[in-house]
Amino acid sequence: MSIPNAPPSWVARAAAKRAETLNKIPAEWRLSPAELAEAEKQSDLTGPFIQQFLEADEIAVISKDSVELVEDIRGAKLTAVQVTRVFCKTAAIAHQINNCLHEIFFDQALERAAWLDAQFSGTRSTVGPLHGLPISLKDQFHVKGVDTTMGYIGWIGGNLGISDPKQVHQVESQLVTELLSLGAVLYCKTSVPQTLLLGETKNNLIGGEGALQALRGSTLGLGTDIGGSVRIPAAFNGIYALKPTPERLSYRCVANNNPGENTYRSTVGIMSTSLEGIELLLRADLSTKPWLRDPAVAPIPFRNEIAREYGLRANLDGTANGNVPLKLGVLWTDGTVQPHPPITRGLNIVVEAMRTFLKADGAHDIHSQLNLSGEPLIPNLQRALYLKEPTDLLTYQDLTLQGLQYEAEYSDYWNSTAEEDGQIVDAVIMPVAPHAAVIPGKYYHSSYTELINLLNYSVIVIPVTKADKLVDTVDSSYEPSSSFDKKNWEAYDPVVYDGGPVGLQIVGRKFEEEKVLSIAKIVVSAMETVKAKGTAVNVDNMTSSDK
Amino acid sequence: MSIPNAPPSWVARAAAKRAETLNKIPAEWRLSPAELAEAEKQSDLTGPFIQQFLEADEIAVISKDSVELVEDIRGAKLTAVQVTRVFCKTAAIAHQINNCLHEIFFDQALERAAWLDAQFSGTRSTVGPLHGLPISLKDQFHVKGVDTTMGYIGWIGGNLGISDPKQVHQVESQLVTELLSLGAVLYCKTSVPQTLLLGETKNNLIGGEGALQALRGSTLGLGTDIGGSVRIPAAFNGIYALKPTPERLSYRCVANNNPGENTYRSTVGIMSTSLEGIELLLRADLSTKPWLRDPAVAPIPFRNEIAREYGLRANLDGTANGNVPLKLGVLWTDGTVQPHPPITRGLNIVVEAMRTFLKADGAHDIHSQLNLSGEPLIPNLQRALYLKEPTDLLTYQDLTLQGLQYEAEYSDYWNSTAEEDGQIVDAVIMPVAPHAAVIPGKYYHSSYTELINLLNYSVIVIPVTKADKLVDTVDSSYEPSSSFDKKNWEAYDPVVYDGGPVGLQIVGRKFEEEKVLSIAKIVVSAMETVKAKGTAVNVDNMTSSDK
Repeated sequence: MSIPNAPPSWVARAAAKRAETLNKIPAEWRLSPAELAEAEKQSDLTGPFIQQFLEADEIAVISKDSVELVEDIRGAKLTAVQVTRVFCKTAAIAHQINNCLHEIFFDQALERAAWLDAQFSGTRSTVGPLHGLPISLKDQFHVKGVDTTMGYIGWIGGNLGISDPKQVHQVESQLVTELLSLGAVLYCKTSVPQTLLLGETKNNLIGGEGALQALRGSTLGLGTDIGGSVRIPAAFNGIYALKPTPERLSYRCVANNNPGENTYRSTVGIMSTSLEGIELLLRADLSTKPWLRDPAVAPIPFRNEIAREYGLRANLDGTANGNVPLKLGVLWTDGTVQPHPPITRGLNIVVEAMRTFLKADGAHDIHSQLNLSGEPLIPNLQRALYLKEPTDLLTYQDLTLQGLQYEAEYSDYWNSTAEEDGQIVDAVIMPVAPHAAVIPGKYYHSSYTELINLLNYSVIVIPVTKADKLVDTVDSSYEPSSSFDKKNWEAYDPVVYDGGPVGLQIVGRKFEEEKVLSIAKIVVSAMETVKAKGTAVNVDNMTSSDK
Repeated sequence: MSIPNAPPSWVARAAAKRAETLNKIPAEWRLSPAELAEAEKQSDLTGPFIQQFLEADEIAVISKDSVELVEDIRGAKLTAVQVTRVFCKTAAIAHQINNCLHEIFFDQALERAAWLDAQFSGTRSTVGPLHGLPISLKDQFHVKGVDTTMGYIGWIGGNLGISDPKQVHQVESQLVTELLSLGAVLYCKTSVPQTLLLGETKNNLIGGEGALQALRGSTLGLGTDIGGSVRIPAAFNGIYALKPTPERLSYRCVANNNPGENTYRSTVGIMSTSLEGIELLLRADLSTKPWLRDPAVAPIPFRNEIAREYGLRANLDGTANGNVPLKLGVLWTDGTVQPHPPITRGLNIVVEAMRTFLKADGAHDIHSQLNLSGEPLIPNLQRALYLKEPTDLLTYQDLTLQGLQYEAEYSDYWNSTAEEDGQIVDAVIMPVAPHAAVIPGKYYHSSYTELINLLNYSVIVIPVTKADKLVDTVDSSYEPSSSFDKKNWEAYDPVVYDGGPVGLQIVGRKFEEEKVLSIAKIVVSAMETVKAKGTAVNVDNMTSSDK
């Protein structure tokens, strides 16, 4: 991406900013030119590759998930400084090999971690449920003393959207204030794609936060999502994500594009290396009652009773009970663009695991895999909602109305799943994208995630499998339904996609965050059980009625 | 209001519709020309005037409030048919003397009441908590078999906004479905002001529902409010109203102007002759989980714990407890238009009653009457949000953003009331309008209600007093702050306003419906106690710091 006749000043400013960020990395964490060259050659930077730059005790720390880390700090097995230092180092290495950070403030983080340790050693109690946990932030959240550029060169040295010079570097997003009150340590801000700053860099992976977590430079981070921006990086990097209903977490004082467009709202989302990390943050943040400070947040605390109800319904503990079993829908395709073979196999893995798991428990079969597919999207509406040029107000309001009516009709459709047996579908399993981690330039069809934004639904992304050139061969019998479908279908190359993570969405309705979290735990647990038992997952044994 | 060169056809259609509506009133409930002429001469049609057309047992029925009626039906002291018949008759008389109805469907109502009675005598149990209760509806709600014109001549014979001919007269608002499932009886739809249909009639009172309830032709009704349309008629007719947060009750399938304008939303509100009636309907409707059918409704059930908490905090039962006392703010004026003397006296009645009551209980004094006044409105924004001509989208979105920021800043301001003593203001008492029940054409300043719509707050209106020419004399020392303020101030005439009801708003933040209901009960109870004790309420003994 380059701008013709661009004045050289911005290029220089961008270069200076990149150099400044790199210079915030201590010398002992810097990679050599040879190491950087080696990194350039890799298709997979995770696991062994990045671990070669870490000590064994450091690898032990980054291998833990968020909940294990806060438990170890609370149990005095690790200090906040130890944990923070390891994640700063890992994030520093990750940044050098994939440019995943916009802002580095390790000094500030280590100072805070030392303060938290002093508090803990003085009182033997933690500041809050996130005590000592490093949390990374997408570069839309304001942290005191730190730039927020969102990738705009013009905002280097300031905070995007904050024009009062007295406020610059003094401003703090409400959610950031909440995280600090809960004991979190903030240490870096992750990059955003498709902005001027990144346009000049080489970036191997889309999604700074997703890449950072794939390299274990963070276990927990905040992102935002108006069309898939927390779910797609999660799916393509093999991590977990929650995109809640927009009114669940505070967006107050967070930089954004076009903040006055309030009909379809960007949503704060949580990305984590574990489902427990997502729950930790959601539960902790809601305990601060964010609605008392941000009137846009609905006053709904974390509802343990819903989490409990779904735990019981899955018979996870193997005991019999009078509850009805889960009823899950599967959206195999949106009818417009057929998912590639690795995605369809991923869907089959989940379906098969849920069947096997529930059967193995001696409990109920999954009542029905109701096919929520064939549901016509409104492609024109979808496009219109993301218009780049201002439309006239009456057209805009008419589109708003169509969107609201679509929400209501989809709600009716969901309710209609109870018509046959009186039981409504609890959640729907569906693709994040019609392909595994994307080949740059081949992301043609984003409706699988955008649909959920249009509906304002709650959704969890879980990693399910990786594309496998030996298994996920091209299905030459498939007849594309349109030239658009053909374009995506023909982009599938088993060799190129080999190893690319496949994540899937588990979708609930509005304000069903606790429910989709519980169901995601059940699905993950079912997949692990199947894997442990070595149960063969055979794609071909699905009946055609399931597809 | 007349349209120059209007084709005679619409005049004829309007006349035909009015005749048709009148013809639905049985002959035995029709008033004579002499009685109608007598009604024309009255300034107050309530109480003795309308009661002359009713039998003693009928007066006994319409003197009951919603909860008493459902209890009497449940206790087999009255039948649904008896109750329905009396309210149909009273509504019929009310309509003849003040044109408060758009639609009459007494036959349908009596048939339903008979069915409910049969159900009850068969099973000895009620269909639901609203079993047999007549509920009136503003003419935006769709009822099967009945027109929804919203006053548009062009929609006579159909349902506004429903263009599919197969749907006409078949459509039902979600909230109507819910009311029917709860056992309610629907019998009439109340008129809306400032529409073509009403333009040809003489209408003594603004607000069909308010007037109907003032005449006891209904104890409970649904309205809508985007700038005060349930609160103003309630205040001017001496009844109660709740305007909840927009996301609390379903607006699905309710006719509306400009439904695509979703930034500031019209809200379904409840009007009743008692606070208990409002609570009955809110509690019953939320028990049906309307959010499962309307995705625009937040999944927040009726929260008994909040109602309980505020009951305890007021020490209503006289027992000591460890809870902090209520802290109420008072907005004496918005700083733009000074309320007339009856309104200021009404505010003083509430303040004095709360003091006296809480003191009499041996409990705490009201901690502080924090003055939330002097808060600058954004008059330009308020105007812009109600623009009649389409603006361009970017301006619209900028205004949306300003509105959202104003909401957030007002939230900060509210939170700042805890700065001095750690306790946040629980609710704010403020005028509905800067004058008592309006003289036609003199309603200059509607910001006292519109502000609350802008903030999406929950608010209760309670009747407090009536304008009294002997007490509410003109304060000649007042210096208007602007020519606009002067216009309203000079419109005050103690003789003309004499007897006009004064209602006040009790304002909570978003989603605080249970809280404002509880506080309203405390305030009403305090006023009753003060009245019963004959405590003189002296306007002059308020300290200037309270004002």
